Amino acid sequence: MDKMKKYSELYKEELLGNIIPFWMKHSKDNVGGGYFTCLDQHGKVFDKDKFIWLQGRQVWMFSMLYNNVEARQEWLEMAEHGADFLKKYGRDAEGNWYFSLDQHGKPLIQPYNIFSDCFASMGFAALYKANSKDEYADIAKNTFENIINRRNNTKGKYNKIYPGTRDLKNFSLPMILSNLSLELEHILDPKLVNTLIEDVIHEVMEVFYQPESGLILENVYQDGTFADCFEGRLVNPGHVIEAMWFIMDLGIRIKSQPLIDKTIEIALNAIEYGWDKDFGGILYFKDIKGYPPQQLEWDQKLWWVHVEALVCMAKAYHVSGNERCKIWFEKLHEYTWKHFRDAEYGEWFGYLNRKGEVLLPLKGGKWKGCFHIPRALYQVWKTLEHEPANLVALK
Amino acid sequence: MDKMKKYSELYKEELLGNIIPFWMKHSKDNVGGGYFTCLDQHGKVFDKDKFIWLQGRQVWMFSMLYNNVEARQEWLEMAEHGADFLKKYGRDAEGNWYFSLDQHGKPLIQPYNIFSDCFASMGFAALYKANSKDEYADIAKNTFENIINRRNNTKGKYNKIYPGTRDLKNFSLPMILSNLSLELEHILDPKLVNTLIEDVIHEVMEVFYQPESGLILENVYQDGTFADCFEGRLVNPGHVIEAMWFIMDLGIRIKSQPLIDKTIEIALNAIEYGWDKDFGGILYFKDIKGYPPQQLEWDQKLWWVHVEALVCMAKAYHVSGNERCKIWFEKLHEYTWKHFRDAEYGEWFGYLNRKGEVLLPLKGGKWKGCFHIPRALYQVWKTLEHEPANLVALK
Repeated sequence: MDKMKKYSELYKEELLGNIIPFWMKHSKDNVGGGYFTCLDQHGKVFDKDKFIWLQGRQVWMFSMLYNNVEARQEWLEMAEHGADFLKKYGRDAEGNWYFSLDQHGKPLIQPYNIFSDCFASMGFAALYKANSKDEYADIAKNTFENIINRRNNTKGKYNKIYPGTRDLKNFSLPMILSNLSLELEHILDPKLVNTLIEDVIHEVMEVFYQPESGLILENVYQDGTFADCFEGRLVNPGHVIEAMWFIMDLGIRIKSQPLIDKTIEIALNAIEYGWDKDFGGILYFKDIKGYPPQQLEWDQKLWWVHVEALVCMAKAYHVSGNERCKIWFEKLHEYTWKHFRDAEYGEWFGYLNRKGEVLLPLKGGKWKGCFHIPRALYQVWKTLEHEPANLVALK
Repeated sequence: MDKMKKYSELYKEELLGNIIPFWMKHSKDNVGGGYFTCLDQHGKVFDKDKFIWLQGRQVWMFSMLYNNVEARQEWLEMAEHGADFLKKYGRDAEGNWYFSLDQHGKPLIQPYNIFSDCFASMGFAALYKANSKDEYADIAKNTFENIINRRNNTKGKYNKIYPGTRDLKNFSLPMILSNLSLELEHILDPKLVNTLIEDVIHEVMEVFYQPESGLILENVYQDGTFADCFEGRLVNPGHVIEAMWFIMDLGIRIKSQPLIDKTIEIALNAIEYGWDKDFGGILYFKDIKGYPPQQLEWDQKLWWVHVEALVCMAKAYHVSGNERCKIWFEKLHEYTWKHFRDAEYGEWFGYLNRKGEVLLPLKGGKWKGCFHIPRALYQVWKTLEHEPANLVALK
């Protein structure tokens, strides 16, 4: 068997034999509804709060498995279990999604964070594919419209930036929209999807992308120029790499070879830039001018950065046959499986220090849930299942 | 010479020979006004934004030196240089202090953070002692009144907590008020000062203090009971230790030996609880139940934690003669001077990783300015100048 195909088998086995059973076993809250995500090394619940990002993402994950892997009833039930909780408790009177709820669904943190809405919308859209209740499509669509309406001031009254002095825009929203545009394609007007795709490609590849460095910045002036301040100098290599596979998927969708080539080039730049030459792994944050970043966690190694990089390099290699992508895939594979995977108690660690030692022994928390690792395992499995080949249709 | 007295000399020399000259040389912004605080290892400015916490604290620092060490004109000028900038640009129309401004004083971040007001008030109050312009006293007093008015919802409209589900209160404000009450004594109504002192002692020593653990929590329910959530489980040992020397000072002020004894007991608990048995130094955050904290920087070693612990143990030893305090002072001294001090380029580093290696090579930034280190050096110098002795007046 071809070596890359062996990886495909391995990633499939890890997804279905380790990760998904872990969340099936430990995360369902049969008392309060929804999912527990704060799970210690053994899977034991150490905190019962419900974070909307992670609730929505887990609904998406189990729906996606049901839709794309196998129509297992237990997966659909798990997705609907989370969706029921979200539907009942997740939104304020205006339809904005709270940031967090307590175990029983009472709101804790107000809807200041639009990514709650993004992941809720994504979850309900995937669930609608699995079980086409109109209600699910409506929630996904209404939430999406609300995101579009809020996109110019996503934090609303919680926005602490004084207007007019230094109006920056942030990379996270266009990045998520590049993924959402495909995730929601089946419930949106095709014209809207096309406009959206055009728009996010422009934002990511022309506004946020900086030709001088070959990298993407987290925050730029409205016209895409560089702002010499903490926010403006910030590079989050993991964000760049993850965004590049989102845009690569869009490149395949719109059949644009130059776009695909560009995403591979930028992704390789970001991996090389973010790679820690001293201790291995990809750094969490860097300052583009080499100054001390304000993020104290800048030198840590995070699970999502590494698994998204694996997805990106697997896709890049598959679509281009570029050997550099294969080399990086294998290097990332080695680091990631060695340091993040917990061979003893299942699932993977999320947070390592610079040297690759476990910083927090949790399997899930406020930000790590049932999402990046299983999605990445699925993506690598599916991508490497078939022989690497340029996309014939694009040639 | 007595060993503790030698420390006094050393701390004085470090303050006047290293730290203060560093800030005199590198931090004055003669173009935009106020102070640069983002200084790299060599003292070079790497970012020009002005953070109100640090502007106010530096005004305080130079005023305090002028008031208490020596009436050097250059120190008064330095203080007034920062005060002019603050006065002109620091407040919104309602007198709330912004969080940050750009180099030339244009507001960047709205007044969501009441500690900006606390440090501005403290700065102007100290400056009024040095140069008794009514204007300085007015700014300090008006700001202080505003703090008191805002104390039940310090973040105002920027408060993201949903009311009623889990109403916690946070330790930071009573902690700062315990220090402010003495810092502003000369400009406030004595009755107000007495009420305030009584109030903060009650808050810190009865509401936030937890008899079972012997520690102080960062967030508790309104009645002081324990909240089993990320915020409620959080211990910031450095905060506890710093607060204990503030309250110890109040204990001396109100001549209460039991209060002084209690602060020493809690401070020793906090140091022992926070001390990193594996690598030395005091950890930044811990979860009281031993769960993973949400702060990714939990295992780092921060300058302010260590220098405030030095102040606390010096004062505790001086006021009680307790040998445990002396032992801790010396252990802390050894760790702190070895790891934080930069023998090569002056001043001290602020952020170390768990192993005591430099994490960010800066001398000043968004949160580290001309404050904790010089204040601590001054406090240790003055405290250990005289023989250790119980306070005769209290016996």
